[in-house]
Amino acid sequence: MAPPVPSIDRAPDRPAASLDPLFRLMSGDLERVNTLIVERMHSPVALIPQVAGHIVSAGGKRLRPLLTLACARLGGYRGDRHIAIAAVVEFIHTATLLHDDVVDTSELRRGRDTANAVWGNKPAILVGDFLFARAFQLMVEDGSLRVLEILSRAASVIAEGEVNQLMTANDTTTTEDAYLAVIEAKTAALFAAASRVGAVLAERPVDDEMALERFGRNLGIAYQLIDDMLDFSARQTELGKTVGDDFRDGKITLPIVIAFARGDAEERSFWRRTLEDGEQQTGDLERAVRILERRGALAETLARGRAYAGSAIDALDRFPDSPLRRALTEAAAFATERGF
Amino acid sequence: MAPPVPSIDRAPDRPAASLDPLFRLMSGDLERVNTLIVERMHSPVALIPQVAGHIVSAGGKRLRPLLTLACARLGGYRGDRHIAIAAVVEFIHTATLLHDDVVDTSELRRGRDTANAVWGNKPAILVGDFLFARAFQLMVEDGSLRVLEILSRAASVIAEGEVNQLMTANDTTTTEDAYLAVIEAKTAALFAAASRVGAVLAERPVDDEMALERFGRNLGIAYQLIDDMLDFSARQTELGKTVGDDFRDGKITLPIVIAFARGDAEERSFWRRTLEDGEQQTGDLERAVRILERRGALAETLARGRAYAGSAIDALDRFPDSPLRRALTEAAAFATERGF
Repeated sequence: MAPPVPSIDRAPDRPAASLDPLFRLMSGDLERVNTLIVERMHSPVALIPQVAGHIVSAGGKRLRPLLTLACARLGGYRGDRHIAIAAVVEFIHTATLLHDDVVDTSELRRGRDTANAVWGNKPAILVGDFLFARAFQLMVEDGSLRVLEILSRAASVIAEGEVNQLMTANDTTTTEDAYLAVIEAKTAALFAAASRVGAVLAERPVDDEMALERFGRNLGIAYQLIDDMLDFSARQTELGKTVGDDFRDGKITLPIVIAFARGDAEERSFWRRTLEDGEQQTGDLERAVRILERRGALAETLARGRAYAGSAIDALDRFPDSPLRRALTEAAAFATERGF
Repeated sequence: MAPPVPSIDRAPDRPAASLDPLFRLMSGDLERVNTLIVERMHSPVALIPQVAGHIVSAGGKRLRPLLTLACARLGGYRGDRHIAIAAVVEFIHTATLLHDDVVDTSELRRGRDTANAVWGNKPAILVGDFLFARAFQLMVEDGSLRVLEILSRAASVIAEGEVNQLMTANDTTTTEDAYLAVIEAKTAALFAAASRVGAVLAERPVDDEMALERFGRNLGIAYQLIDDMLDFSARQTELGKTVGDDFRDGKITLPIVIAFARGDAEERSFWRRTLEDGEQQTGDLERAVRILERRGALAETLARGRAYAGSAIDALDRFPDSPLRRALTEAAAFATERGF
């Protein structure tokens, strides 16, 4: 059904695109994070670890906690507080996923049934609340008000972004700026905070802290742009979620914004019918993909994603060359070259 | 439809039951809390203050923030940090209400349409998340790790209680102990934390802190027991929510636990059909109320509620007599004598 991913012409100066080096360098730390996550999602109420474990163990990329781990180490941190803070980042992320899937009535995530599909909306909402509260408990145990400040602000910005997304849904007049404001909040804010707290743990000067914040923010935007592109172009088995979910939800993502701006009257009326009025019929997703390709909207989205990934990589310039910096660079490149 | 509230035979030694003295003594502080709440639920995303304002301004009793204000003052606190912490308590409470109403598919709260009834589930879930995050931001601004610890633990216990309630729903074999565990977590934990942080702000010795914790906990249990009773016995106009909601949801509350234990085979089969199998028909709520009355289950629930309110009042013994202590005593008595 879905066409192949837009062809990737890698320029000769483009860094290798892979998460592997980052995983390899951080694997010891990440294992400790995973152990702590399982330990701290425990509750005497048996349904909580069941629901939380379902999504936590579904094999996400652990990108956000990896950023915390790696940025702390990049800053020269030698302690082990970054383990707990990385777990906090993953708890916050998992809580938002649980609520997102309820809000979007999604049925597939990371190749598995969503928690709401298995247990219904109620446990998904309430276990999300639990994980969110537990994240704050872990931060309080760590005791850094700076970390608490950065991550509580991120959490409220994420919620704002999600609400903002509801308001732009079904609105084909959404501008690129409005779209960027949504994804900066709903996605990039946590990437930025996850990276920044690494610098805080390492007690780096504020310039380094803001550089890692910029790294995370640009990476998050790149990541979300590609996510939005993959919703139209991925192979479903690779994506691990349902292709066309955003389209069916009437979400106005960058490919749509671009195609609408470049579209003729007939195409615009197609977008209005399917996305604003929500009147979709068999074949509409395929037609949407054909229009997006004809208008170069997927390739353009990919190009924008690569530009943001480039900015992320540039933000690492101030740190001396090291295997870890190279691994973060390759991870940023991976964000835009992935098929899932 | 609903019969009158069980008659209240006030013993001569029972304290006056009223929230008025507490409101009067705390009105200046409470006004500042209300101002801060409106200020801090602001967001550039317009839907957030709309949804939050709808529920915040619906005229709840503000009992929980009142506890924080009053307990801080009772402990001799003279600063103004209690204003922000009381707002935090109300934000956490409001966030749980927004999510509760989605989980319970409630349509009426405090005499108004619920947020989910007006805007749908999505904004209700996400604005709840926002208020929860904002509560933590306010605590971080205050800067007390003790307060953060107490309220983040309460938040996670509340979520556990809510999930636990899902698990006991529709289960007529629920014991009184299991029921008490649910309401201690979902309701009493926040009453306890709200009271305890007042003592923390006042820098009282730990014995005083635990006494106020006990005061809040027992008051919260009393409050919830009466809530559960009122679901079957209140006049709807007074209650401000739909009478019989718990029954329709298959919630196993103390009146049901008592009536089931005391019931004959026919009654038990009625409870199983209506609550376990969820097969309800016209007249079932009225029949439920008749059985509850026949078995003395509402009067018994009220008696238990009064006992917990008594324990709450006893916990105040260690504080010298004062208008504020008397006001808290009358507020505790009110919890069990209210018709709404």
